[in-house]
Amino acid sequence: MNEVIQKIIAVASRIRDSIKSKRLPTVSMPVRSLQNVKYDDEIGFFELNGKMKERTLTASTIKTFAQTLRMMSFSKELIETDDMATKREMYYTAYNWEEARFNSQPESDSVMDDIEAMMMTNREKMGFIAGEKGGGLVAGELIVVDRDFETKEWIRIDCTKFGSGAYSIPAIVDHFGFETKAKYILAIETAGAFERLNKHKYWKKTNCIIVGMGGVPTRSTRRFIRKLSDDYHLPVYVFTDGDPYGYFNIYRTLKVGSGNAAHINEFFCVPNAKFIGVTPQDIIDYKLPTHSLKEVDIKRAKDAVKNDPFVKEHKEWQEAIKLMVKLGKRVEQQAFAKYGLNYVMDTYLPEKLSAKKKWLP
Amino acid sequence: MNEVIQKIIAVASRIRDSIKSKRLPTVSMPVRSLQNVKYDDEIGFFELNGKMKERTLTASTIKTFAQTLRMMSFSKELIETDDMATKREMYYTAYNWEEARFNSQPESDSVMDDIEAMMMTNREKMGFIAGEKGGGLVAGELIVVDRDFETKEWIRIDCTKFGSGAYSIPAIVDHFGFETKAKYILAIETAGAFERLNKHKYWKKTNCIIVGMGGVPTRSTRRFIRKLSDDYHLPVYVFTDGDPYGYFNIYRTLKVGSGNAAHINEFFCVPNAKFIGVTPQDIIDYKLPTHSLKEVDIKRAKDAVKNDPFVKEHKEWQEAIKLMVKLGKRVEQQAFAKYGLNYVMDTYLPEKLSAKKKWLP
Repeated sequence: MNEVIQKIIAVASRIRDSIKSKRLPTVSMPVRSLQNVKYDDEIGFFELNGKMKERTLTASTIKTFAQTLRMMSFSKELIETDDMATKREMYYTAYNWEEARFNSQPESDSVMDDIEAMMMTNREKMGFIAGEKGGGLVAGELIVVDRDFETKEWIRIDCTKFGSGAYSIPAIVDHFGFETKAKYILAIETAGAFERLNKHKYWKKTNCIIVGMGGVPTRSTRRFIRKLSDDYHLPVYVFTDGDPYGYFNIYRTLKVGSGNAAHINEFFCVPNAKFIGVTPQDIIDYKLPTHSLKEVDIKRAKDAVKNDPFVKEHKEWQEAIKLMVKLGKRVEQQAFAKYGLNYVMDTYLPEKLSAKKKWLP
Repeated sequence: MNEVIQKIIAVASRIRDSIKSKRLPTVSMPVRSLQNVKYDDEIGFFELNGKMKERTLTASTIKTFAQTLRMMSFSKELIETDDMATKREMYYTAYNWEEARFNSQPESDSVMDDIEAMMMTNREKMGFIAGEKGGGLVAGELIVVDRDFETKEWIRIDCTKFGSGAYSIPAIVDHFGFETKAKYILAIETAGAFERLNKHKYWKKTNCIIVGMGGVPTRSTRRFIRKLSDDYHLPVYVFTDGDPYGYFNIYRTLKVGSGNAAHINEFFCVPNAKFIGVTPQDIIDYKLPTHSLKEVDIKRAKDAVKNDPFVKEHKEWQEAIKLMVKLGKRVEQQAFAKYGLNYVMDTYLPEKLSAKKKWLP
């Protein structure tokens, strides 16, 4: 039987047993905050520190309790029918639950987050997807093996065959297999930089797979990179703008996860990711055009040095951030265009990929 | 010779001739505003009303003049080498133009917009792309014919073969060809609704092509739909949330274009698009769950009835908007989930597509 269905049945049985023996039923789930995570470089991602919160059935929690159980039951249906629901669809599905109806989508989302944490699994395995943003783009030496959920046939998708277009990652990728002889994965922040590397078949020249993240990668994009990297022991190199958003929101989230969703980091993080640029040192080494840091960027950077478990673990990051603040500058991926449009591809990336000492952990 | 290169040479020659004969050179371009467009349902998109602005070389315009000429020259290079540059790359490329360097990217973007208007072409044909957002998603009964710009070989991309994933439209599609026997194109606002229709192969069951726009469609997504619809005389049906954003920002822009870029509407608009939902009348007919309109939505709607040339032309839209304001409600695509996740696919869309009278123009 499907492992998530087993967990749903286990939780439900425990609650039923409590009720039968006239004890108040409780559910427990991990506390979700940066204060309840620890980071160990050996493990490679933010782990839960073990603090739990309990919710006991009382007059004031009865509605949330009912909603939690009904949503778990709906998830079981989704898994059994091999279907899926967006967060928004979940909210409208509950429209017929009478007194257990949600007053707003944030209410429904929050119950979903609690169930995810309680099950210690990712909600995609429960059939729930976000649905707001399309997934990352992929091109290169890779065959994605997907499965037709109606015919049960395997589908092989060759990511070298999309011309100037690309393969777009769907919301659920847990069932994917891969075939590849590529040497590494290059994850890129902007759609524009992805299009340049794709148009010029950078992936063919260097035998790699390129992934366009389009800003902060969606969960399925992170899961895709992680699974692919695991299956073939592929190194993952990350190339973003050189600013706090690129360093923390994109790179750190991809590599070690975030504090408020530490229960899923295990599935989504890419611990072997390395940051290849743009680093503050590159501004000096390549005499790059820059923009001034905003006050909020400086605050963000200083806060990271002081409080972020990931930055505190890595001296190299502390130094990089200090240099960024000292220069007072941020830099964009496209700044290399100062030396010609293809300099980034023909000079910067090859130089950087062969200079391991200049990467950041 | 490439038509854009011809235009660039023509403009440049005219300027050189002026200078040689000691006249002050001028360039002229259409005024870009909603006040300078007209709408005729027969033509089907916002057209320029003919108002032009002239820019004469003077001491105060000399820098912009120089930048315009250098950017035109750079565009010529891009076309000749079959390359492309994002707006951001253009800005950095000009970093070496000494006194003609741009102070900021908005300055560079604005010169690009002017050149585009002056040439009366779309900037993609000049090699310039936006690069911020990935393109729309495509699945269904369609083969996209792209071209490898290095080997000059044609590439056939079969959009029925991507499993739960999809084909992502690149920034430049002017060179694309298509092969299809599909009956229509269905353009969808959200990634989540696209994923549902794709997972259940709605496109196979109804012999169509589905396009996920991910909010307001990018220029290349609009161009893609337009070209495909032209080549095979395919009707285009648009399915968005039932709110002013869906009606005006998404649907109206896709169909007739916008005021400040009327010089390119000719290439990007999809005049034969029809709006199939969600309409304000659907709220009543299907007893859909809704959200209250915000003050800003009501203002937006009233303004459209009064000032938007498209709405003024179509009584059906005026009535729909009045009904929306009267109900005081907006509705999301996912609201049909009230009747089960697949109701939208199995009941709503088939009913709506066969009830031509309920479409909006």
